[in-house]
Amino acid sequence: MTGTLADLGEFGLIRAITARFPPHDGLLLGPGDDAAVLAAPDGRVVATTDLLLEGRHFRRDYSSGYDVGRKAAAQNLTDVVAMGARPTGLLIGLAAPGDLPVSWALRLADGLRDECAEVGAYIAGGDVSSADRVLLSITALGDLGGAAPVLRSGACPGDQVVIAGRLGWAQAGLELLGAGADGPTELLDAHRRPRPPYPTGLALAAAGATAMCDVSDGLLADVGHVASASGVRVELRSAAFEIPEPMRAAARALGADPLRWVLTGGDDNSFVACLPAGAELPAGTRLVGRVVEGSDVLVDGAAYTGAQGWDHYRQP
Amino acid sequence: MTGTLADLGEFGLIRAITARFPPHDGLLLGPGDDAAVLAAPDGRVVATTDLLLEGRHFRRDYSSGYDVGRKAAAQNLTDVVAMGARPTGLLIGLAAPGDLPVSWALRLADGLRDECAEVGAYIAGGDVSSADRVLLSITALGDLGGAAPVLRSGACPGDQVVIAGRLGWAQAGLELLGAGADGPTELLDAHRRPRPPYPTGLALAAAGATAMCDVSDGLLADVGHVASASGVRVELRSAAFEIPEPMRAAARALGADPLRWVLTGGDDNSFVACLPAGAELPAGTRLVGRVVEGSDVLVDGAAYTGAQGWDHYRQP
Repeated sequence: MTGTLADLGEFGLIRAITARFPPHDGLLLGPGDDAAVLAAPDGRVVATTDLLLEGRHFRRDYSSGYDVGRKAAAQNLTDVVAMGARPTGLLIGLAAPGDLPVSWALRLADGLRDECAEVGAYIAGGDVSSADRVLLSITALGDLGGAAPVLRSGACPGDQVVIAGRLGWAQAGLELLGAGADGPTELLDAHRRPRPPYPTGLALAAAGATAMCDVSDGLLADVGHVASASGVRVELRSAAFEIPEPMRAAARALGADPLRWVLTGGDDNSFVACLPAGAELPAGTRLVGRVVEGSDVLVDGAAYTGAQGWDHYRQP
Repeated sequence: MTGTLADLGEFGLIRAITARFPPHDGLLLGPGDDAAVLAAPDGRVVATTDLLLEGRHFRRDYSSGYDVGRKAAAQNLTDVVAMGARPTGLLIGLAAPGDLPVSWALRLADGLRDECAEVGAYIAGGDVSSADRVLLSITALGDLGGAAPVLRSGACPGDQVVIAGRLGWAQAGLELLGAGADGPTELLDAHRRPRPPYPTGLALAAAGATAMCDVSDGLLADVGHVASASGVRVELRSAAFEIPEPMRAAARALGADPLRWVLTGGDDNSFVACLPAGAELPAGTRLVGRVVEGSDVLVDGAAYTGAQGWDHYRQP
């Protein structure tokens, strides 16, 4: 579809977007009324929301509409999975300038839809508005299926600390894009579109994870939330992390420390979980440390002195 | 609390905001983890989302942070009530510039909280980010309590068309503010803070409403959605609407048509519903027309020729 949002109009845009979303058994009433109605068989609903702003969380010259859609959905779906819940529906708020190409908005919708399909979820509804720059709000809902939610506060001394998914790839890709590099493709793509290991996240919950969160602010920051919420110390071993060759090469090219990417890079939407000492590690997870008495996060026995997570109002 | 968001920092802001939200029996897990957990006893959850942008949906020189919070919550809570559901929890996304006074953000949170309290709902979680201007995303969830949702598509020829709440007040107030007027206060306040008749909306559902929606785009636009979704014509009688004296006086002062405000003004967050012919009108509702066979909305037997609703990408 050619033209801009101003050509199509608000209601035309809504029709064009919703036509791209397939029906789903769990979506009892889809877009078009005052609100949607979603199945919530557990009798509890898990809910999380995020904002993604152009220029802050994504750039249209770095990422396609499709990639932004995948990433926006992934970021919220992983929050639901990190509770041990199966994602059900997403609600989307989209504000955009009138001169945005319709094709960009429709590819965004495709990306949201396809990322949902990775984990059996669906788009339940949304809102569109106008703004100078593209901004997205995403709310994800999920169902616990009778299980207790996996909190950040349940880690116990003796637990194993395990990760599922990639760490540092998205940050490496972002720094490569910032330096004008055109490769390695797999790192650039990792910034554009995370690949969260949803099934492995759910497997960690099923394996008895005492605590879990998704890695969105960087591993040290996120496992730090587990440590402080649980009142424990997390000890990580740097040798336990995999630093793949493309990342080593990119680090050499940029004069960067790849371990910093792994420990502090956000946006890979992986999972970090604590499992009881005897528990078997689900396939696709990696043991990277252990929980002990104390506080804070140590790397190889010491506080990590590189850059930490991100504060939206305090930027270097 | 003095200072700006940049002084307080992202995590300080989150702590300060969440400290203002009281516990609630329905909120099984509140802010602080990857996601919240809310009770959804019906086994279905009603969900709706909206974006509110500074300069587009509100102005900081017209409205206080508290008023913006009340209005933002009201706009979504009425969408839930218009489905015949009782609102449960709200999720809030807030992006704001670092130089925003902390007091503005905290009063915003107070307004969200207090509007929720009007209908027994609560704040379940949220996200904060930075942006050049204030923007809010609100997602509201609700519980149907075993009832069927009230759709826009159920109106039948013979039904009574009834309204609950004020119409045109917010638009009159907005135009007065635009003209630099400092009164009448009740109209200015109606723009700043709608007063949705939540219990009356729920009473309309309980009285057997065949269709209902909240009036956010203007009565003609919103009842037009009912007409087209239901495949019926709605006939309104202009004499049935109340045009209170302050609105008449404001219209005279501005050279405006108060009936246009009533028929096309948005943002009062009232309700329009269709009730079967024999059904008794709940207290606080007003009969303004009837449903007949056909299509479109007529006012006194003719198409209304004044300005209609709002399209976000096509502005005059």
